Amino acid sequence: MALVNEHFLKLSNSYLFSDIAKKVHAFNVVYPKAKLIRLGIGDVTRPLPPACIEAMHRAVDELADASTFHGYGPEQGYGFLIDAIIKHDFTKRGISISPSEVFISDGAKSDTGNIGELLRWDNSMAITDPVYPVYVDSNTMCGRTGSLDENGRWSNVTYLSCTEENGFIPALPNHRVDLIYLCYPNNPTGTTLTRDQLKLWVDYALENDTLIVFDAAYEAYITEPDVPHSIYEIRGAKKVAIEIRSFSKTAGFTGVRCGYTVVPKEVTASDIKGNRIPLNSLWNRRQCTKFNGASYITQRGAEAIYTPEGQQQVKQTIDYYMENARIMREGLTDAGFKVYGGVNAPYIWLKAPKGMTSWNFFEKLLYEVNVVGTPGVGFGPSGEGYLRLTAFGKREDCQEAMQRIRRWKF
Amino acid sequence: MALVNEHFLKLSNSYLFSDIAKKVHAFNVVYPKAKLIRLGIGDVTRPLPPACIEAMHRAVDELADASTFHGYGPEQGYGFLIDAIIKHDFTKRGISISPSEVFISDGAKSDTGNIGELLRWDNSMAITDPVYPVYVDSNTMCGRTGSLDENGRWSNVTYLSCTEENGFIPALPNHRVDLIYLCYPNNPTGTTLTRDQLKLWVDYALENDTLIVFDAAYEAYITEPDVPHSIYEIRGAKKVAIEIRSFSKTAGFTGVRCGYTVVPKEVTASDIKGNRIPLNSLWNRRQCTKFNGASYITQRGAEAIYTPEGQQQVKQTIDYYMENARIMREGLTDAGFKVYGGVNAPYIWLKAPKGMTSWNFFEKLLYEVNVVGTPGVGFGPSGEGYLRLTAFGKREDCQEAMQRIRRWKF
Repeated sequence: MALVNEHFLKLSNSYLFSDIAKKVHAFNVVYPKAKLIRLGIGDVTRPLPPACIEAMHRAVDELADASTFHGYGPEQGYGFLIDAIIKHDFTKRGISISPSEVFISDGAKSDTGNIGELLRWDNSMAITDPVYPVYVDSNTMCGRTGSLDENGRWSNVTYLSCTEENGFIPALPNHRVDLIYLCYPNNPTGTTLTRDQLKLWVDYALENDTLIVFDAAYEAYITEPDVPHSIYEIRGAKKVAIEIRSFSKTAGFTGVRCGYTVVPKEVTASDIKGNRIPLNSLWNRRQCTKFNGASYITQRGAEAIYTPEGQQQVKQTIDYYMENARIMREGLTDAGFKVYGGVNAPYIWLKAPKGMTSWNFFEKLLYEVNVVGTPGVGFGPSGEGYLRLTAFGKREDCQEAMQRIRRWKF
Repeated sequence: MALVNEHFLKLSNSYLFSDIAKKVHAFNVVYPKAKLIRLGIGDVTRPLPPACIEAMHRAVDELADASTFHGYGPEQGYGFLIDAIIKHDFTKRGISISPSEVFISDGAKSDTGNIGELLRWDNSMAITDPVYPVYVDSNTMCGRTGSLDENGRWSNVTYLSCTEENGFIPALPNHRVDLIYLCYPNNPTGTTLTRDQLKLWVDYALENDTLIVFDAAYEAYITEPDVPHSIYEIRGAKKVAIEIRSFSKTAGFTGVRCGYTVVPKEVTASDIKGNRIPLNSLWNRRQCTKFNGASYITQRGAEAIYTPEGQQQVKQTIDYYMENARIMREGLTDAGFKVYGGVNAPYIWLKAPKGMTSWNFFEKLLYEVNVVGTPGVGFGPSGEGYLRLTAFGKREDCQEAMQRIRRWKF
């Protein structure tokens, strides 16, 4: 008989978002006429930029004619998109990246989930806590996280707490680890690191020979000048960091599926004998073997993000969401809540009042003002006592939610 | 320091198709004016069916408007596509598949590469030889194949030889294995199994508690009535088989990226204590954690394959390629070659004359008639002495290649 990968069995069967869906469904059964406002899920609502729409129509038409048809593309992505990425996302910021260091994919979630395949299962790892659950779940699947204790912590994971006390800026690990996941701007807290703060992490990685997986999916939401858009703005980072980017939140590509990962040629890990192995060639081999490139139509759409019109249109959408964030921050603060994030990120991290747990506050918000958030504890133990709200909703929904919350006697 | 996954280092750095590209490049440098005809690579050349083009234009337009916008879709794929698949690919053939057993993906290569994650690294496995290299390479990456010997065979893989002597129909393993990959219609030999022949494999799997991964990417090319289109046409297969399908060769989706995998609820593997674990729920967890669904545009395009117009258009394209196959079979046979496949598959398996090796014959064909094939040995040790040609080229190229080969004194 075939034996299952036993590590899969350690994962909980229920997911945060399906638990939420069940509770919302139960509410709906009792109060079918209530007008729910969903500020919980991190999906966008604005349409795609017209430049992307036009580019994708053109790409579809190319596939209709044998003389312009595109079949298999390069597994690593098309040069036209890689060149646009390098020029706009890196060269402009003084970062030198070569085309063979950029790998286009069907989205940051795939890359985030798959990147761990390049490393031995028994490397030690650290995450900031709370954080995007895929880092832990994907590492659990290969056995890297160990076993789960009663407090919801994995035995082989170093949790770097992000709390009100430290301003949600985690301290460096007090020991060395092999692998660290960083996500900035952060999902779910909406916080960022300044250049000096991020430099501490790069220096730690250089000193400790640690690999950083830097998730910059929300880079486009940065508004403050001292917040780096790429980890490669920090000297030395090209030796220690892989950076993952997404077009999902930048340009509304959550349903179109495109992202990219930068694996600099200098980033290495070690074999058992101590030889340094470039991760670039391993990732290339992984992608060539298990992936066949992102859709041509998608890649042409993503290329259009980098045209002057595309850049202008993307900015309008991001401004829309960030105005939502401002409205929500202001409304919540006026109502007496403690609020974090929402300045360089589309996420608002709302402290539950009166020491309530995440789930208690979630239910109170649902039943008393009919607003759906995401319980912070779903992102990790240190998320307990918080709720994540997102700025991706419709303007009128954000406004109405704030009106209800301002009137609310909680 | 982070340690690399040492199994990646066992893989050869060069790929079959890049080796071919290098040799073709060397030829081009010496003979820049030669008109090369490429019959080697398995990529399609006909444009997409008009029904798919129209559906994708409509989908792009939906994404341009907030009221019809689609963000994140279900990781498992949209119901509209899953329903169309079940109705046309299974219900019509008397097979009962439920929607939660079908998982839409960005292509069969991804699923083929990732499915092994569900199983322990030390399960034993068998492949037919020669075969699509992803089965072995993806299992090598997790350590399942063991070590490579001097004859190009992995120590923990059972090779089931497909040779002229057995009509390219492999014998059952003479011992039990945990996992078997079958690909029918076969890439690269173009051969198929009849119902009775496939039944032997399902019965073996039922008796030996073996999991079959059945790759049916070329199902649409079946012309003969006694060749099953799905392994689930065989009684009992839903207990032992996962089936992987692709729209790449059916409808020209090599650049659009869509396929699907069926994981029946009855298919299980065992945990260490002997409990049976449904692979459906493990695959669902894997996809929800490491994948975010195929592009909405792509899924709408794939749905259109199943409309009456789409079916008619797909048939025209397949007829075109199969007429190429007929021309090539006839031309090669007339020229005195031994030829297999090309009846229920777009692949022609050409025996190298006079005991030549695959690579010698490849070079002779390249330099003497300027036709590019794929050396059979690239698909496994038993492929030595063969060359794969594909029927995906342009009609005039197939015709000209056959004219050259008919005149050729080899």
